[in-house]
Amino acid sequence: MSAAKKVTVVGSGNWGCAIAKIIAKNCARHDEFQNEVTMWMFEEQVEHRGIKRKLSEVFNESKENVKYLPGKVLPDNIRAEPDLKKAAEGADIYVWVLPHQFVPRTVSSMGPVKEGAMSVSLIKGGLELEGGKMGLCSDVLRKLLKHNVSVLMGANVANEVADEQFCEATLGTDAPEKDQNLLVKLFDCATFRVRAVSDIAGVELCGALKNVVALGAGFCDGLQFGSNTKAAIIRIGLEEMTTFIRHFHPSVKDSTFLESCGVADLITTCFGGRNRKCAEAFVKAGGKGWVDIEKELLGGQKLQGTLTAQEIWPIIEAHKLTSRLPLFTTIYQIAFEGKDPKSIVSLSPAIEDANKQESK
Amino acid sequence: MSAAKKVTVVGSGNWGCAIAKIIAKNCARHDEFQNEVTMWMFEEQVEHRGIKRKLSEVFNESKENVKYLPGKVLPDNIRAEPDLKKAAEGADIYVWVLPHQFVPRTVSSMGPVKEGAMSVSLIKGGLELEGGKMGLCSDVLRKLLKHNVSVLMGANVANEVADEQFCEATLGTDAPEKDQNLLVKLFDCATFRVRAVSDIAGVELCGALKNVVALGAGFCDGLQFGSNTKAAIIRIGLEEMTTFIRHFHPSVKDSTFLESCGVADLITTCFGGRNRKCAEAFVKAGGKGWVDIEKELLGGQKLQGTLTAQEIWPIIEAHKLTSRLPLFTTIYQIAFEGKDPKSIVSLSPAIEDANKQESK
Repeated sequence: MSAAKKVTVVGSGNWGCAIAKIIAKNCARHDEFQNEVTMWMFEEQVEHRGIKRKLSEVFNESKENVKYLPGKVLPDNIRAEPDLKKAAEGADIYVWVLPHQFVPRTVSSMGPVKEGAMSVSLIKGGLELEGGKMGLCSDVLRKLLKHNVSVLMGANVANEVADEQFCEATLGTDAPEKDQNLLVKLFDCATFRVRAVSDIAGVELCGALKNVVALGAGFCDGLQFGSNTKAAIIRIGLEEMTTFIRHFHPSVKDSTFLESCGVADLITTCFGGRNRKCAEAFVKAGGKGWVDIEKELLGGQKLQGTLTAQEIWPIIEAHKLTSRLPLFTTIYQIAFEGKDPKSIVSLSPAIEDANKQESK
Repeated sequence: MSAAKKVTVVGSGNWGCAIAKIIAKNCARHDEFQNEVTMWMFEEQVEHRGIKRKLSEVFNESKENVKYLPGKVLPDNIRAEPDLKKAAEGADIYVWVLPHQFVPRTVSSMGPVKEGAMSVSLIKGGLELEGGKMGLCSDVLRKLLKHNVSVLMGANVANEVADEQFCEATLGTDAPEKDQNLLVKLFDCATFRVRAVSDIAGVELCGALKNVVALGAGFCDGLQFGSNTKAAIIRIGLEEMTTFIRHFHPSVKDSTFLESCGVADLITTCFGGRNRKCAEAFVKAGGKGWVDIEKELLGGQKLQGTLTAQEIWPIIEAHKLTSRLPLFTTIYQIAFEGKDPKSIVSLSPAIEDANKQESK
């Protein structure tokens, strides 16, 4: 048997802490992994029990991230390390879970990476158009790290994962079979079921695009539309995710959208996530901007859906996809161009025609 | 241009009245249809404004079904007809929307059917095993009526359709193209978008099976599980719907499950429908039986999910599908064999293995 693998979680926000809990328990029970899991924690000053302290120190004493996942105690075998170089050193498996805009800076600051190491990206978003092709965050990681990068996406609202409520996730991977099995073992447990599929782009793009659809679902909620309408918007959203992804990755299968990363993540995000919540507030608040809503409702977390909507908009325009993506287009226009939120339910020209018709 | 088609809606419950509203508006604005829509109404005595009266008389005065869709006024061009023979006579298009158990009796009592007539079934459920093959309700109608039968299913909670909230539906049909277009025109409008697919069995079975999955979603709600868990159960449900349907109809496509009849109907049923609601009550009430819950919560409506679960159970057993359908199996066992509702989240042997493992 080969030496036990050292696992480092790069990032320690809400989702980072929740997944670290799953990983740490698996590292404790499987011989393939070293017992201790290192979590790189970006250092911040926090007020804790009336005293200003370092976030990582409070975490290492209490195993609680008092700022981003308050109230959840993580396993003892997680150690927060604020020094990126120390956290990254000697790891065999990197689990990436930080806002995508921090990726290049983090990789360039973390020092040399061990030969044969691999990564799993849990980062949703970070799409950009590069020479007419759409770049993924896992592509950026692969280019910078020069090793194998898989992705893990699914219906995984962080707080519920931290509470060990049953859910599923999808590992998109092209790693050799033995490494795939190892990665499944790192994440899979009774309450967090993981299935591997060979479609990295499909899995990762589902994870990014569903946040855009969630804005549409939130607009529905803000307008107090019923469950039929919301289900229709979610379904159209899934269809447009398929259209968008297939435009750039023609080989993606319908079955990927039926995995946890597809339909399940979309459902949970459209009913329980922060993008939905902020979009609902956006409609209800009338003129209020996204920055204010984010500040008010998310307490330091980032709103991914609006960011992704802005990232994909130039891609949609450059590839002349607006007529094939009426929902994505309408969501962007409502969010950033002052279009009436009610237009979310009048997507196709056929509808306007029908409205114009007179009764006999 | 051929003569305007006479349309009869067979059934006048909650969903029958809601769809009759859509149909009546389309009949009023499209020359292809006669203006007046006949709705067969099973006669009942109702107490209306303190007086005992006939349901159909009250309807024809007020255009309100005071028992099954109270508070919604339907268009003037719908006429309720309690005499089945009169309602059915001379119709070109029958829209079937009554509990499936009434189908044979209704067809045999309705008198002769016009040559060239066709039907659309909106009936969800009515599956049975016939000579090793699974029979559909549309098969029964086709056999009895000896004409073309399409099906219409989708994310269509009746009250919201009656309120003209935006939604979608899927027409499963093998009618000639001209008839398909006619049927789409009968249902499609700005707030009720209809798309035709050629897969009758897939569409109809989605409509039946989703009610079984909704029981699972309701159990989750009764147990106060979060949105990740519910999304996972819904996704596994969709996967088992695919497995079940494909076992009997190997040619069914993944894409059918991404239509309104598939994923959207499943979502709306798992968040808004009566099956979910009763299943939640079933868990919360402990020992209370389905009959009591149905009586208490549904006021005369039938609970479809438990019926369908009982219908498919012998089919699942006869075809040795229990290990491939762990969710359907567990839902049946919770609903009818006293299994612990919590077992909904321990579906696979892998989970038990994981729970048995000790920490290192």
